[in-house]
Formats: sequence, structure tokens, C-alpha cells
Amino acid sequence: MLQELKSEVLMANLELTRLGLDVLSFGSVSGICRSEGLIAIKPRGMKCEDITINDIVIVDMEGHLIEGNMQPSSETLTHLELYKAFPGIGGVSHSHSTYATMYAQACNEIPCLGTTHANIFYGNIPVTRNLEEHELTDYERNTGRVIIERFAGKNVDMMPAVLVAGHAPYCWGKNAYESVKNSYMLEYIARLAWGTLIINPEKAELPEHVLIKHYKKNNGLSSFNIQKKTAV
Amino acid sequence: MLQELKSEVLMANLELTRLGLDVLSFGSVSGICRSEGLIAIKPRGMKCEDITINDIVIVDMEGHLIEGNMQPSSETLTHLELYKAFPGIGGVSHSHSTYATMYAQACNEIPCLGTTHANIFYGNIPVTRNLEEHELTDYERNTGRVIIERFAGKNVDMMPAVLVAGHAPYCWGKNAYESVKNSYMLEYIARLAWGTLIINPEKAELPEHVLIKHYKKNNGLSSFNIQKKTAV
Amino acid sequence: MLQELKSEVLMANLELTRLGLDVLSFGSVSGICRSEGLIAIKPRGMKCEDITINDIVIVDMEGHLIEGNMQPSSETLTHLELYKAFPGIGGVSHSHSTYATMYAQACNEIPCLGTTHANIFYGNIPVTRNLEEHELTDYERNTGRVIIERFAGKNVDMMPAVLVAGHAPYCWGKNAYESVKNSYMLEYIARLAWGTLIINPEKAELPEHVLIKHYKKNNGLSSFNIQKKTAV
Amino acid sequence: MLQELKSEVLMANLELTRLGLDVLSFGSVSGICRSEGLIAIKPRGMKCEDITINDIVIVDMEGHLIEGNMQPSSETLTHLELYKAFPGIGGVSHSHSTYATMYAQACNEIPCLGTTHANIFYGNIPVTRNLEEHELTDYERNTGRVIIERFAGKNVDMMPAVLVAGHAPYCWGKNAYESVKNSYMLEYIARLAWGTLIINPEKAELPEHVLIKHYKKNNGLSSFNIQKKTAV
Repeated sequence: MLQELKSEVLMANLELTRLGLDVLSFGSVSGICRSEGLIAIKPRGMKCEDITINDIVIVDMEGHLIEGNMQPSSETLTHLELYKAFPGIGGVSHSHSTYATMYAQACNEIPCLGTTHANIFYGNIPVTRNLEEHELTDYERNTGRVIIERFAGKNVDMMPAVLVAGHAPYCWGKNAYESVKNSYMLEYIARLAWGTLIINPEKAELPEHVLIKHYKKNNGLSSFNIQKKTAV
Repeated sequence: MLQELKSEVLMANLELTRLGLDVLSFGSVSGICRSEGLIAIKPRGMKCEDITINDIVIVDMEGHLIEGNMQPSSETLTHLELYKAFPGIGGVSHSHSTYATMYAQACNEIPCLGTTHANIFYGNIPVTRNLEEHELTDYERNTGRVIIERFAGKNVDMMPAVLVAGHAPYCWGKNAYESVKNSYMLEYIARLAWGTLIINPEKAELPEHVLIKHYKKNNGLSSFNIQKKTAV
Repeated sequence: MLQELKSEVLMANLELTRLGLDVLSFGSVSGICRSEGLIAIKPRGMKCEDITINDIVIVDMEGHLIEGNMQPSSETLTHLELYKAFPGIGGVSHSHSTYATMYAQACNEIPCLGTTHANIFYGNIPVTRNLEEHELTDYERNTGRVIIERFAGKNVDMMPAVLVAGHAPYCWGKNAYESVKNSYMLEYIARLAWGTLIINPEKAELPEHVLIKHYKKNNGLSSFNIQKKTAV
Repeated sequence: MLQELKSEVLMANLELTRLGLDVLSFGSVSGICRSEGLIAIKPRGMKCEDITINDIVIVDMEGHLIEGNMQPSSETLTHLELYKAFPGIGGVSHSHSTYATMYAQACNEIPCLGTTHANIFYGNIPVTRNLEEHELTDYERNTGRVIIERFAGKNVDMMPAVLVAGHAPYCWGKNAYESVKNSYMLEYIARLAWGTLIINPEKAELPEHVLIKHYKKNNGLSSFNIQKKTAV
């Protein structure tokens, strides 16, 4: 079971590299085994492209090292907060991909301006608040907490991405691979939004009925009644 | 006959990938056999780079599956509307290529600012209106219909491209391969226009006599008298 | 002699492709044998990457085909005008490279904003006027003529590049290869200028004493007294 | 000893190329042997990718050639000034990388807008003043001197990068390789800042407590008390 999870997490980290998202080696991908309460995650300080199956680290839900010769990613406690708060997710990806990080640095939501975006993300990509100075003492956990605070009462399945203010994006999914795929989608729709608003700075968001149509169509939800206000 | 069409459509889909236009696997290319009233199209949910000749799907003009083990592209009904309305075209390409999609999202025409553009496209690249809410029930067909509405009384041979508002571009041509080539040209002239207007936001369109000269020169139309107003 | 020229022109066309400048196959490179009064040039309608030595076409100074199985590039008459007017040049390159073409479309000079630019080009990159309607009947020759008009009384060795308004750049050099190298330099300094003016739209040109210093240093001209106003 | 230094400097120059930073062959990397008072540096006029170990040049602290068949890089005297003024550094890199050079040309500091930046560079990336006309006679040394002037009383370890106004960046580090890594980091954070300010031109710098937190975390300085005002 864990061997399979480690293998999946390895492949997802390699995919992050292949897609050009492990910029400056600041990326990290993890996956969870819910029945065992364990996560597999990238080791600290390695490029995604250099890791092998034996480098993947297993930690428990408190971040204690269970298996592996390396230290877990320095972002591990943030990943853990997300797994604890969002019981439906199976994988988490972090990267400093270019356009998504620009939006995170700008502390701006990524507006939903087209069907490419609406196919995957149900509405604007949310951005967290900045951490307060007193929250820096438990920095990694508190990074997870401001994400969770931003999603209070919202549907994380319909919005598998967030921008941490002044930092970079986090994405999640049913498993590690899907979280990487969502990181890739996020980067592309961030780039599209960035360029679209240069053409037309006054461009309003996609009409809600088109957003709903495309999100449903791409997610096989034709009979499901969703409302924009239930999302983030 | 159909085998040849399938082969051509396969190669055109592979070319879409090679040219970097099958972003997020949202691309689809088709070709038509007018005598049989059949089209060959990319299968649903595959990356262009993964398809083989046996994955290419044959459908009739109403979208009924005639041959193939896969479902046809989810954009099939849009392709069919274009083939029915524009009897001179032999291939259709759809992509979410970066700069063309930015213009589609901005709901802005791509202005004709240079000879690169004028060589292929006779004037500004048109953009459709948004679909109304009641048109979403037959979404794919109505996407085709708003394109056709935009071209009413216009010459589709002289303008083998359109931007669907809030969505992405469609291109066509004499055959599948030419429609892909036009998608590539469209992406490049969209990028040029985008950057040109950053340098000089007040830049007017290319003078009409230069547009006519270049369009004729590149299309072997030296003796043909064209007028701008007859195009889109 | 001609075989050597053809070989050099072939290599220069391949280099244009390798450097990513033969966008949409709109590039063409030529070289001249002054003693014979003949030029070697890329054949019409081919991608640079596909040509072989036997495809290179030889024409005389009036553009008559002297050797070759293909037609010469459709830009041949423009190349010839430049060779006739600028006796010191040995090679000419044309491309639709991205940022240089944006500036040509914007009808804006590329301002000299840094030492990268000053190392190669002595001052702002000039832009021609638009062709008048009556000049379109002899379009290729008149494209050459508006370039020559722009350089009247100027030193073409110190400014081996020009932007044709609404069209794209031309570059030249001591031979075909150097003209391609200058096309590459032009593209890079166009990109730098484009991005610099987004950061600081009020940025003035490089101080003249720095321009002179860098141009001399990079061109081995330490004892040569140049003045800005003698250049374009 | 020198053989090892030459090997390290060779690898660092090759890395500059591999990372896409040796644009137009204007890059140069050097390393110093403090005990011998000698530096190893790239030869003049070569592309980084073409050099071999025997091409690496050894010069003394006054720039006299000690070993090698080639002339040292034309930037050698600038490198030497930095080694003399900053006794803690072991390697220096120069490049004309795209976004860092745009900021240098704009004569703008690169603002610290996110944690990617704060992980490596403690605050905004400084820019020098322009050289005066009378300083051009000893151009390379004076380029070093305006950098040193800008860092008067500052901590060069916490800010291993500078922009030379109207020119391009210089970076340094504990050794040649680390200086190249810092050049790569600089280029990426320049690109991020450039795009971030297009999204939100009013974006303020990262709050100081977050800057301190990230800089300490990434540099293993958890117990070290740093203050922003002590940096550049």
C-alpha cells in the first residue's frame, strides 16, 4: 500500500518537473493514505527530477518521520493542515510557477475570464490574507491555516487551488497526480488572465450561466444543480 | 477514401500538438469527405499526441457515430455546424492557443496591424457575441451558430478564423492540415498584435491598400479585385 | 566561388532557423559576390530548415535567374536594392521575428536603452515611412527604396538594421552569416526595450557618452572619433 | 589547486549556458583562489558552451595574465574590483539575462514582492548610478567601483546581486557555481516582479516580518537577528 503511494508521489513529482512547474526546485507534491493516516512527500532540498522512489519520505499526520533517509519537504506541515481540514482530497501540490506566483505576489484573485478556466475552477481563484507577524512562529502550519480560513464554508472540490498572499499557489486533487494536473491548469489560466487584462483591462468575468455550463460539462455534472455563491 | 481522410486528420491532429497548439489537450481537428457526407474527427478526452489512426472517429452530418471505438470530440457538433454552413471548407481546427484565447476572452477583435497578418487573414479577426442563457441547452451547436451569424454575407475563404467570445478560436481551411496551419498563423499574429499595442496603444490598422496588396500577393490573386468591405 | 557563396548562404539560412527567427517561414537570407555581380538567395516558398545547397538560387543584379531549379525568394528585389545602394554590405537577412516585428508594426523606432543595444547598433533602430498606394505596383523594389531613403547620408555599417513600417525588419552585414547574427541581436534588444519601457515608460535613451564608449569597445574602434549625429 | 579552480570555473560557465543566461555570449563567470591571489575567468570572445578547461584564463589581482592561451574576458577588471572590495566572496557572474537586464536598463530596483525573492535576496535588488563621462576612460574598473559605492556599509552576503544602470546584472557567491545560481534566481524574481506589477502597479513590497522570516528560513539563520536596515 505505502509502496504504491510512494510510487504515485514519485511520478507526480516527476510530472511537476516535466511540466516546467518545479521552478527553482521550490515545488513539492504529496499524497495521502487515509486508512493509515500517513502521507508520502518529496524530500527536502532536492530537485524533483533527481528524486527516486527511495527518497520519498513517509510522515504521520503530525509530521513525524515514519520512513525514509531524507528529511521531508520544508512545506510538509502546510500539506498536513490541508489534509486534516479537507477530508476529500488525496494529493497536494505546491509550486512557484510563474503566472500563478505573479498573482499571489500581487495579492489579486485570478478572475474567471473564459471557458478554459471554467472547465476546471468554479469561479475566481481565491487569495489568502497575509500572515500576521505573530503567526510567523509556526509559519508552515499557519500557512495551511490561512488557506483553510479562506475556504470556510466553501466547496474545496469545486475550487482545487488557492494563492497564498505574497507567496505562491497550492493545488489539490483526488490524488497526487491530479493535484499536479490542477497546478498546470492553474498556471495556464493565470497566464491567460494576465494577458487578457492587458488587452482589455475592463473585461468583466465570464457570465455566470456560461461558467456553470462549462464547469458542469467538463465535470460530468449535467444533472447537478450548482450555484455560484456556494463556491469560494 | 475514408482511410485517407482518417490518415489526414490524424496527421493534422499531430501537427496541432507539434506546433504547441494542443494546450491542456483542449484541441481538436476534423476533416470532411463532402461526397460521402462524413467527417473524421479526434476522439474525446485524448491528447492529440496519443492518438493513432484507429482512434479517429467517423460521424455523419448529424453527429451519429459511423465508425470508431471512441466517442467523438465534445466539440463535434460545432465542427458540423461550420461544415454545413460553409460549403467551401474541408477542415476545421479548434484550440485554446495562448494569445488567440486571450483575445477571445477579452472579446476583442485582433486588429490587422501588419503584413504578417495581411498575408493570411483579410482584415481584423472577428469575434462572436456571447451565447445567451437560453442557448446553453444546445451549447455545441449554438457555438457553431454564433460563428455563422457573425459571418453572414461574408467571405469565409478570406477570413479562415474566428474568436468565440469568452472561449477560444476556431480556424478552417481547404483541408484539415490547412486549418491547423491557419491556427498557427492566428496564434502568431495574435501575439504580434498584443505586443504591438503595448508599444503603441494608438496604432491604427494597416492601410487598406497595403492589406489588399499583401493578401493578393500571398494568395496568388494579382488579377482579382477584392474590396475590404466584402470581407468580415 | 559561387559554390562557396551558395554554401555560405545555405548555412546562414539554416542558422536563421536554428535561432528561431524563420517564423512562419517568412525569413530569407542572401549573400553577394561583388566581383561577379551575382547574389545567392533562399528559394521561394520553402522553410529555411528544408533547403539544401542545390535549392539555393543565383540571380543577377536585375533579379534574372542565373542558376537553380527553384524561383528565388519573393523578397529578392528588395535584397537587390539594398546591395545596389549599400556597396559595403555582403549579406542581407529578412525575418518576421517577434519583438522586432512588433516595433515595425507599431511604426516605432527601437530606442537605445542599454549597452547590449549599444554594443551592436549605434543609436535607435530606424523605421521607414509607409509605402504610398502608387508605390505598391513595384512593391518589392519600393520596399528597398524606402529603406534607402531612410538611410540617406547615414552610415549603414554603424546601423545594420531597419524596421519596415507595418511589415518587419531587414538586417545586413559583411556577409550572410553576419546579417543573421545582427537579426538575432536585433530581436533580443527589441525584446529588452519592450520590457524595459513597461517597467519605466519614461526611460530616456542611454547617455550618448556611454553609447559611444560601448559601440567603440565592441567594434575595436578606440581610436576612431564617432559622433552620434553622423549615424541614423 | 589552480586546476581545481579552473575546473570549477569551467563548470560554472557551462551552467550559465545551460540555464539560458549566456545570452548573446555576453556572460562571464570567474572564481578566486584567495590564498594565491589569483582568479580563473572565461576567455574573451567565446561562447560559454564552447570553452574547455584549457581555455580558462588565470590572472592576478591586477589583471596580468598568469596562465592561458587566450585573453581574459573583457569584464575581468570589473570582476577584480569586486573581489578586492568584498573579501567574503569566492565567485562572480555577469550576464545580460532578459528580465534582470530590463530592470538594469530601466534604472529601477527590483522590488521584493514575494517569498521567492526573500528566500535569496534580503530586500530590493539595488541599482548603481550611471557612470559619468570622465569615468569612461577606465570603464571596466569604474563599473566595479560604482557597484562598490552602492554597497558602502552594506552586507554583500545578504544581497548577492546588483544591477548596473543601463547595462546588466552582476551576481556573486561563495564560489563560481553559487554566483551562477544567484544569477538564475535573480532572473526569475525579476520576471516575477515585472509581471506582478502589471497585475497590480500599486503593489507594496513584502511586509518586513515576512521578508525576515523567509530569508532566515532559507539560509538556516533561525537564531540570527537581522534587521532590514542593515541590508542594502
